[in-house]
Amino acid sequence: MTANGLSHPGPTTIGVFDSGFGGLTVLRALLHRIPQARFTFLGDSARLPYGSKSRRTISRYAVQSARFLVEEQGAQFLVIACNTASALALDAIQQAVPVPVLGVIEPGATAARAASKTGDVLVIATDATFQSHAYAAACQTRGLRALEKACPLLVPLVEEGWTQHPVTTQVIRIYLSEIFAEAQARGLNPDALVLGCTHYPLIQPLIEQAAREFAPDGFRVIDSAEAAAEAALNLIQGTAAQTSAAQPDEAEVAAIQCFATDSVDKFERLGSRFLGRPVGKVQLVDLGG
Amino acid sequence: MTANGLSHPGPTTIGVFDSGFGGLTVLRALLHRIPQARFTFLGDSARLPYGSKSRRTISRYAVQSARFLVEEQGAQFLVIACNTASALALDAIQQAVPVPVLGVIEPGATAARAASKTGDVLVIATDATFQSHAYAAACQTRGLRALEKACPLLVPLVEEGWTQHPVTTQVIRIYLSEIFAEAQARGLNPDALVLGCTHYPLIQPLIEQAAREFAPDGFRVIDSAEAAAEAALNLIQGTAAQTSAAQPDEAEVAAIQCFATDSVDKFERLGSRFLGRPVGKVQLVDLGG
Repeated sequence: MTANGLSHPGPTTIGVFDSGFGGLTVLRALLHRIPQARFTFLGDSARLPYGSKSRRTISRYAVQSARFLVEEQGAQFLVIACNTASALALDAIQQAVPVPVLGVIEPGATAARAASKTGDVLVIATDATFQSHAYAAACQTRGLRALEKACPLLVPLVEEGWTQHPVTTQVIRIYLSEIFAEAQARGLNPDALVLGCTHYPLIQPLIEQAAREFAPDGFRVIDSAEAAAEAALNLIQGTAAQTSAAQPDEAEVAAIQCFATDSVDKFERLGSRFLGRPVGKVQLVDLGG
Repeated sequence: MTANGLSHPGPTTIGVFDSGFGGLTVLRALLHRIPQARFTFLGDSARLPYGSKSRRTISRYAVQSARFLVEEQGAQFLVIACNTASALALDAIQQAVPVPVLGVIEPGATAARAASKTGDVLVIATDATFQSHAYAAACQTRGLRALEKACPLLVPLVEEGWTQHPVTTQVIRIYLSEIFAEAQARGLNPDALVLGCTHYPLIQPLIEQAAREFAPDGFRVIDSAEAAAEAALNLIQGTAAQTSAAQPDEAEVAAIQCFATDSVDKFERLGSRFLGRPVGKVQLVDLGG
């Protein structure tokens, strides 16, 4: 796979991009599965959140970010660790850069297909991901019926640090009661819920607990960060297995460099919650927005 | 006042700027007091919220927005209807445009001075306004002691439309209990609370109700949107009274034109809640971000 640049010597450089630092949950899953890679993460925090913006604006921001990772940081593989950018800008990014680009929507839908027996699944996401109906489309091509819901309060609750707070539990219960009521009204019988936002894994225990009130036994909550990391591993193993194998010395410690377009302090402070380990020194980068 | 452009024929054009549409609460208060003016409102919605960004980034965005209103829309007077931009970028805006510029912080502090008997006041705001400590500084110059608190969940709750929701009541109670406890620990005796964010007037009844649990009788909640509109009226009356008097035919219907850098649909949909009347057709503008 010389064409996509994955066969050069040294560890594969994987660029991971998000509108903020929520995508660090995807990086965390990637680190677990592909420890021998070199990771460059960019959080476009000057322009977050993408979740409430239009397709046109999100595409423009995401393409600038993707070009930074590929052209300036030498990324040979891109993971769009942002559901909104995956939903609205994946095509634009794939056209803009000459390396393989993986979003989080398709892997999430694939994991939902594997988990669901009834063929009916629920998806919770930001407003922009909801409005795009990208999960519904990806699920439909896999023979699933998906009911989506926008849950705009969950990101601010996670960023407030209320990840084990009774208010968060109450908001999740309200959102889930609404989506389960709508599913029932439409004659659906959902047995899986996709977390369609990279912030949501931090409140996955609360979501699983609330879902037990409304859902049948065996109901599954699917983290699309984990699903995307699994898909990335499969893609990279398929294209660059020999590269990894040729670098045994570098296989043990994953190298991470994080960039942000704003609020480096906040990124360093909150990022470790998402990554599950210190994010290290974050470099400020100006994409000209 | 030829120098600041307020003496040309026709109604005064007042430019009003916010990071989103929360500043429409300021426009609403301005319309009530200065109905004979022509208003041009810009919501920099492609880059909202400012509340979680750095001073450097906020200044850059705010100056671009101010220039658009003055250079392209002919505004002769600017009201920065955004607490975060007022806190972090007022100096930069004043240097960048040749017209009078009024923020919301100073009028809010002046209103607090008028309302407080004890000299101790509370301020609730976004994270960036809090971090700037602009209210504390403005209060201090007026002989007040101000205790500030960041309340980052209130904007998303208002934007979710939960302006009369029990969860919002609960979140307000948590924030107010924390700030009153901190005031007590510091030996303060606050008798006024400044709403340091243009979204908060929409939940002012809930805030007043919650404050009654913790506050003494006669406790006052101060809307800085109203205070800023009052200050704008005084400034404009002082500089352009004859201009307004010369235009009796145009004195009855205020003309409003709204611009947004993104999400015009959302602006049109939600804006009327803040303005208290339809916002009309919103024009999309590209500031190059």
